[in-house]
Amino acid sequence: MIIDLFIEKIKEKRNPTVVGLDTCAEYLPASMLAADDGPKSVSRKIFEFNKAVIDEVGELIPGVKVQIAYYEMYAEYGIEAYKKTIEYAKSRGLVTIADAKRNDIASTAAAYSRAYLGMSDIGTKAFDADFVTVNPYLGSDGIIPFIDDCKKYDKGVFVLVKTSNKSSSEIQDAKLSDGRRVYELTSDYTAEWGKDLIGKYGYGAVGAVVGATQTAEAEKIRKRHPGMFFLLPGYGAQGATASDLAVSFDKNGLGAVVNNSRGIICAHKKNPDVKYYAAAKNAVLAMRDDLRGAIAGL
Amino acid sequence: MIIDLFIEKIKEKRNPTVVGLDTCAEYLPASMLAADDGPKSVSRKIFEFNKAVIDEVGELIPGVKVQIAYYEMYAEYGIEAYKKTIEYAKSRGLVTIADAKRNDIASTAAAYSRAYLGMSDIGTKAFDADFVTVNPYLGSDGIIPFIDDCKKYDKGVFVLVKTSNKSSSEIQDAKLSDGRRVYELTSDYTAEWGKDLIGKYGYGAVGAVVGATQTAEAEKIRKRHPGMFFLLPGYGAQGATASDLAVSFDKNGLGAVVNNSRGIICAHKKNPDVKYYAAAKNAVLAMRDDLRGAIAGL
Repeated sequence: MIIDLFIEKIKEKRNPTVVGLDTCAEYLPASMLAADDGPKSVSRKIFEFNKAVIDEVGELIPGVKVQIAYYEMYAEYGIEAYKKTIEYAKSRGLVTIADAKRNDIASTAAAYSRAYLGMSDIGTKAFDADFVTVNPYLGSDGIIPFIDDCKKYDKGVFVLVKTSNKSSSEIQDAKLSDGRRVYELTSDYTAEWGKDLIGKYGYGAVGAVVGATQTAEAEKIRKRHPGMFFLLPGYGAQGATASDLAVSFDKNGLGAVVNNSRGIICAHKKNPDVKYYAAAKNAVLAMRDDLRGAIAGL
Repeated sequence: MIIDLFIEKIKEKRNPTVVGLDTCAEYLPASMLAADDGPKSVSRKIFEFNKAVIDEVGELIPGVKVQIAYYEMYAEYGIEAYKKTIEYAKSRGLVTIADAKRNDIASTAAAYSRAYLGMSDIGTKAFDADFVTVNPYLGSDGIIPFIDDCKKYDKGVFVLVKTSNKSSSEIQDAKLSDGRRVYELTSDYTAEWGKDLIGKYGYGAVGAVVGATQTAEAEKIRKRHPGMFFLLPGYGAQGATASDLAVSFDKNGLGAVVNNSRGIICAHKKNPDVKYYAAAKNAVLAMRDDLRGAIAGL
């Protein structure tokens, strides 16, 4: 199962970091850009950048998270770079998370799932990631098509449960008449959606996105659902530290992956004297050591 | 303002229908497909189909809603067809709704907004729709970047409030400790997000997606927020009738648009004796007359 493979890579590298390839023109080294760059040339450069970063840090990490929003800015050219980035990361043995936060109902949810996890209605693959992030606001109708493809193609999803941003409180923390918060309700549905997809380490292929900045909530969800695997965004640029994250991990150092995007791919902006991929590698090593220092059993 | 223009087109055509171009290989006429169609050729055919439908029904409708999930199945080729569909619909004077249900936070939400409503970080446009649908689960941080672009580029958004599917009840109907349901809370935030974008007819450019199947909830939201413009999916294939929708309209026949996707673009499947675009036109005329019969003031 993909979740077992993911855990094995984390154990092997002793590193639960996923590098967030949120690459866009603004984040590229200035030396890579030309004044007349259009969507086509900039998308090609984005893929080149991603490829060099993957080559440099691939040995140190279990996987990558690729945020599609940045690529959509360049329409079809960006999407081609997105597809090639996922393909290249997989070819280098990395687990791939398509961070797309897709959501819709019935046949439309199925179309999204076909694009990210399965096959199109003409039998071709679009992105073929290992995991995709999904938004639960529409309920089971919007999630089951993805779960069906997880079973069929050995894939996984991460459901948005409690996000890392400040205003996640507005809807996710709303208090229900039964005493739960909305994010707890969502976590309970997530557990239900994933009940048939538990791997050999006790963690399931239907995981939860829980902001690394949300220590108290992460602790509550962890107690509620010990076998729920977490994707933790918010380390670094958003302010979460390694000790904030520790509550999400078990005594063997398992239970979650931690994303860092700008802290790694934009490290060259703070270190103009080293090549961008070397700056990314230094940032990955520093983060790995920081996590090893704070998470018991890693 | 775009919402005023939309309303003027609805008044001019006496028709609040938006045609949902959820086009994919499965929905194309069998005669258009070839056994060796790949993502590139099928995407070209999808655009040809959309173009012919727009040419045939464009005079009768105020706008189109283009659901991106289907196009994503064909990766960069599908996205090119998506972009060209939006462009072509605009060139024919139609208001365009990108149905993408995008959601993320901060700079990532901004990247999505740049893709659908604004400009990329290199100053180019990706899809340039008039409206985009967004998912509110992440709260204001996820929505404000879109609102900023609405102000800057004269665009609009539709926020998912109460969706048409059965399991929308799971999270959206959850009862809060203050007596509201989650969808009411969402509608209140939507009103807040849109308060500076009200047009001359009293309706705002920050609208709500409310399932046409959700009559009781639509009535509640309408009372709560009289100036909230609704996008109503669920007519036809999902079972909502014209009389179910009437509660969402004011006495002048304004206040909402009604989407129909498969009932129009797949009409040829039930009418194999007519050309697909003629079948689509017949379906649009039938729906228009059905709505005129049920909505006072139209």
